[in-house]
Amino acid sequence: MTRGRFIALEGGEGTGKSTQARLLAEALSTRGIECVVTREPGGTEGAEAIRRLLLDPPGDGWGPRAEALLFAAARSDHVEKLILPALERGAWVVSDRFLDSSRAYQGGAGGIGDQAVRTLHDIGSGGLRPDLTVLIEVEPATIAERLADRDGNRSDAIGGRSAQYHADVAASFKRFAAEDPGGFAVVDGEGTPDEVHSRILEAIEPLIGGEL
Amino acid sequence: MTRGRFIALEGGEGTGKSTQARLLAEALSTRGIECVVTREPGGTEGAEAIRRLLLDPPGDGWGPRAEALLFAAARSDHVEKLILPALERGAWVVSDRFLDSSRAYQGGAGGIGDQAVRTLHDIGSGGLRPDLTVLIEVEPATIAERLADRDGNRSDAIGGRSAQYHADVAASFKRFAAEDPGGFAVVDGEGTPDEVHSRILEAIEPLIGGEL
Repeated sequence: MTRGRFIALEGGEGTGKSTQARLLAEALSTRGIECVVTREPGGTEGAEAIRRLLLDPPGDGWGPRAEALLFAAARSDHVEKLILPALERGAWVVSDRFLDSSRAYQGGAGGIGDQAVRTLHDIGSGGLRPDLTVLIEVEPATIAERLADRDGNRSDAIGGRSAQYHADVAASFKRFAAEDPGGFAVVDGEGTPDEVHSRILEAIEPLIGGEL
Repeated sequence: MTRGRFIALEGGEGTGKSTQARLLAEALSTRGIECVVTREPGGTEGAEAIRRLLLDPPGDGWGPRAEALLFAAARSDHVEKLILPALERGAWVVSDRFLDSSRAYQGGAGGIGDQAVRTLHDIGSGGLRPDLTVLIEVEPATIAERLADRDGNRSDAIGGRSAQYHADVAASFKRFAAEDPGGFAVVDGEGTPDEVHSRILEAIEPLIGGEL
């Protein structure tokens, strides 16, 4: 049994990650590859419970340290109970967000630093990395349009932070990809979902090769 | 304004920590010292929400890594929002459990190791240590009697673990105290609550000295 591949989709709010995760999983299934679509924070019963605490915090909200620990706890449960078992039985896993979101949001924009986020991931999840991280990049103006179209322009405790916070997040993602060109594929997220989907399929083609 | 003192009460289930925390706070108040009694996991609105996830886990329970991260997240919120502000305004804080419970339960008996628990505490709470940790030691037979007397012999996800787990916890606490004699006072927890209270007061007398 060949171990499955693990693909993370990353990018800020409104870059189309969840739509693209679904389209990618459908394309992989068509090629006969079992594929599990999941998301962070969440993906397991425990991690979804932590997600609710993160996006709708009790009291006056979490400080950056507690927030980073909660994300790492949710990821630990997700990796242990869903991601690793799926990969081990040969399924592919496509996750809407993974570690690099914590590096960008809690490490960079949130302020606890990249090393601390990586250390939490080492302790919580044995440092598991995706086989490929697809970073979807979209212009801020396009994101603003897309978010305005969402039902009721809803916003949670993290999505609702300042424009500067979200600009810091985007800059962090760009830097991670530049620092690790082998681990990242940067994909242009402008255009229709199908256009973006084709670009992502092309980016992951090298991973699919051996499976057909 | 003199910074307040921070006292943690530690020990396994049924050693009388919460009763002794209350009696100690009353005694300090009588001497004119403002005292905040709190507990872990919990003590703040956010940390109490995490406590509920820990003691009544969703799904099939937390793995040791996720559990350790959740404890560290709760502690981070507790330290940031309750403990440090109280100490800074000159109040004393008496906490029913603190870091050494995570070292004994998640680090030792739970298996992620002492260094990992300390690292999580450094990241989450800046490594804050109590001025004094009072370890209350009680014979296993006495504990069994006391727990049998509790209403309905209730047991949560952690209290309900095996006798071996709880024996490991007790051994860990004893070792921590032996390794750091200046930071710990080991108090005999056998006898009536008032007898134990007198021993604790005697143990913390050196800290009170300068306050009268």
